[in-house]
Amino acid sequence: MTVTEDLVFHLLKRYKPSTHNQKQLEIAYLAFIDYLACLSKGLETTKNQAFIKSFGLLGEKKIWFSSYSTTPERLALLQGYLAHYEDLDDVLVTYRGHPSAVIFSALLAVSENDVQLKDFLWSYVQGVELAGRLGQQFQPQHVKEGWHATATIGTLAATAAIGSLKQLSSDCFSQLLSLATSQASGFLYQEGTDGKPLNAGFAARNAVVAYQIIRSGLSAYADPFSSKRGWSQTIIGKALDSKQLLENWLQPSQLEKVGLWFKNYPICSAATAGLEAAQKAFELNLSLSEIESLVIHFTEDGDRALTHRTPQNGIEGKFSIEYITWLGLIKGKVDYSDFSENTVDQAFHQFRNLITRKNDLKASSEKRTICLEIITKEETYSFLVEDPKGSPANPLLEDDIFEKASQLSHGKLDVLFKIKERETLTLGEIKKLLSER
Amino acid sequence: MTVTEDLVFHLLKRYKPSTHNQKQLEIAYLAFIDYLACLSKGLETTKNQAFIKSFGLLGEKKIWFSSYSTTPERLALLQGYLAHYEDLDDVLVTYRGHPSAVIFSALLAVSENDVQLKDFLWSYVQGVELAGRLGQQFQPQHVKEGWHATATIGTLAATAAIGSLKQLSSDCFSQLLSLATSQASGFLYQEGTDGKPLNAGFAARNAVVAYQIIRSGLSAYADPFSSKRGWSQTIIGKALDSKQLLENWLQPSQLEKVGLWFKNYPICSAATAGLEAAQKAFELNLSLSEIESLVIHFTEDGDRALTHRTPQNGIEGKFSIEYITWLGLIKGKVDYSDFSENTVDQAFHQFRNLITRKNDLKASSEKRTICLEIITKEETYSFLVEDPKGSPANPLLEDDIFEKASQLSHGKLDVLFKIKERETLTLGEIKKLLSER
Repeated sequence: MTVTEDLVFHLLKRYKPSTHNQKQLEIAYLAFIDYLACLSKGLETTKNQAFIKSFGLLGEKKIWFSSYSTTPERLALLQGYLAHYEDLDDVLVTYRGHPSAVIFSALLAVSENDVQLKDFLWSYVQGVELAGRLGQQFQPQHVKEGWHATATIGTLAATAAIGSLKQLSSDCFSQLLSLATSQASGFLYQEGTDGKPLNAGFAARNAVVAYQIIRSGLSAYADPFSSKRGWSQTIIGKALDSKQLLENWLQPSQLEKVGLWFKNYPICSAATAGLEAAQKAFELNLSLSEIESLVIHFTEDGDRALTHRTPQNGIEGKFSIEYITWLGLIKGKVDYSDFSENTVDQAFHQFRNLITRKNDLKASSEKRTICLEIITKEETYSFLVEDPKGSPANPLLEDDIFEKASQLSHGKLDVLFKIKERETLTLGEIKKLLSER
Repeated sequence: MTVTEDLVFHLLKRYKPSTHNQKQLEIAYLAFIDYLACLSKGLETTKNQAFIKSFGLLGEKKIWFSSYSTTPERLALLQGYLAHYEDLDDVLVTYRGHPSAVIFSALLAVSENDVQLKDFLWSYVQGVELAGRLGQQFQPQHVKEGWHATATIGTLAATAAIGSLKQLSSDCFSQLLSLATSQASGFLYQEGTDGKPLNAGFAARNAVVAYQIIRSGLSAYADPFSSKRGWSQTIIGKALDSKQLLENWLQPSQLEKVGLWFKNYPICSAATAGLEAAQKAFELNLSLSEIESLVIHFTEDGDRALTHRTPQNGIEGKFSIEYITWLGLIKGKVDYSDFSENTVDQAFHQFRNLITRKNDLKASSEKRTICLEIITKEETYSFLVEDPKGSPANPLLEDDIFEKASQLSHGKLDVLFKIKERETLTLGEIKKLLSER
């Protein structure tokens, strides 16, 4: 059995009712609601309305929460982009990427209305599993080299989810994954531009196109995870450790053991601990004029995704620990308007010069710890945050997620919160509940 | 000026009538005819007919030589795939990839009927220039690491051609190239499967989608060729040499100085010299039973693309110097039927064991030299081929290319051979001449 065949064998496991699986599907259901909420929010800007109009004039697939239809591959691209647009969508830290925006967008593009929710969510569980396990082998090298894992590993995760949903033959499934590698690209330098959420859209699109091609009978190299000359050799310069990749698959799953990070703020999750540290400082009523310098401490590569040290607008500000810390210090919170395309306040740029970064905290692949050190004439304050709200060790509870979804969707999603008998629901019935077609 | 802005400045040069430019357009016209011939040939298999049917049921763009229409991005994918399907399409050795299948497919997908042929061909000249110049910096490292340059560099070349044709603003053009990097991927391990020609299709598709997105007003990182953290740093681990990239742009052009390799045989161009060496041996009436061993000599990485040492079918055989040499030795020529999906003849596998490869010839970035050493009981013969027919130093003449195009298209393209006043022709008029719409 090749490495790829072995992987596919694990991905083809069907959902079987058990307490264990039930927990995985519950997390996946929350992730789906959170995904739809982010998607709905992404549709609110004039720019994005124009974008879906320009991409949405023909085809059989309706864009959710809109009146436009389009082709399956455009649907995946658009919805992946929209769901990741505000950077409010969930994160899996082992993968160092956004699972739901990519995987659900790909799955929706290839799903008919008669698909049962439990099969749909189960294939998502499988996609997340691959994302986390590839991430454990690729990271942090992958992000250090400048790749955006949402785009690269994300393409493979979404493809795995499609293959699992469609229960392809082992041979077709292997070739499907292969055509995913042929398309997976995307770089961190897109942060602060629409290129960042587009990476999620491209990843979902890549998975859908790989599926369309395999379905129409074309072939591809059958062992992209080959230990001799596979994808990872070119991308990270070494073969995958197939034992580590597959051992104890879903037992426990990445969703349970690592946990999703449901986001409360429209900022890069790597900065969340910094915002909360600044909020602590705000509560002490520290005046900005007293501060002589400010040091932000990270783990060795904890600030790799925070590429903007001096952001010029709010979109870049999502990826600036300096900007986010400043917001926390001056008002104890952040608002959506802080992260628009508008120019950043001049007052930030004055304060900016007091800030330096250090990478001297103990490394961790499952936390994104930040320590804020504030030096005034009289004193040095230190604010350490290891587990900000929303992160797996300090998670948003179900009610928090519903509250977020309700707010972002202006109540449109409330109908999904109380459903008990989910197992037998179909996607078509969910659309009907939301008055979508 | 950033590196990307500087590049875009060069790409935006318009066509100006001069003897020099005229020569470039003439080569481009031959390449276009050769491209259409390969596209026409690619449509002949039942499998590919089914593929275009499954992808071609809606949209405003007609697939050439067929009755189907589709979306622009699907057109680019399909035609890139079809034109590269038989591996009969042209090669640029500095790039180590196939320029026309990718660039023309992308250009046709975004061109309206009123586009003048001279502008269309000129943007192709620009795309090829970038392909060759990126190749000079990426190769041979890129191919050694397993990347398929047709897919990676090809995406950028096709995107540059589109930006040049559309005469985008410098800012939009830079962001267009940026969204190309977000999608460019593809690996050599696809050789011997449909995944190889699909790489050409993906590259063309990527360029078209980047254009669709920029046209609808979204943003992207504006300096993907940044000397600090650009595309090449992640892909090949070093910044581009911007001087080498841009110095003497088009003076002379890659099309004139390096030259296109127009292919005579449906095999990897890296094997062509080997086929001709075997044909020389065939002419000496050497019997296979006399041969005790056979050594095939290459430059250091000259056989990198010849990934199949023991091909199982004819498609893999396109990338097997062992198979191609054997065909040359037994019959002095190759036929299309030798490279079908059928299983390779058992007699090959017996002979295969006598063959070894050596990489001991002097390196050259512009030649693909092969020396065949045949050892019999009595004697050792040596057949060196440096410039096989079709390669830039021993090119197919215009009449040879017309002859090839006529054969591959069953005469459909003959009407394009005699046109004198090409400058003022439009794409729509060419389609009319070919009775396409």
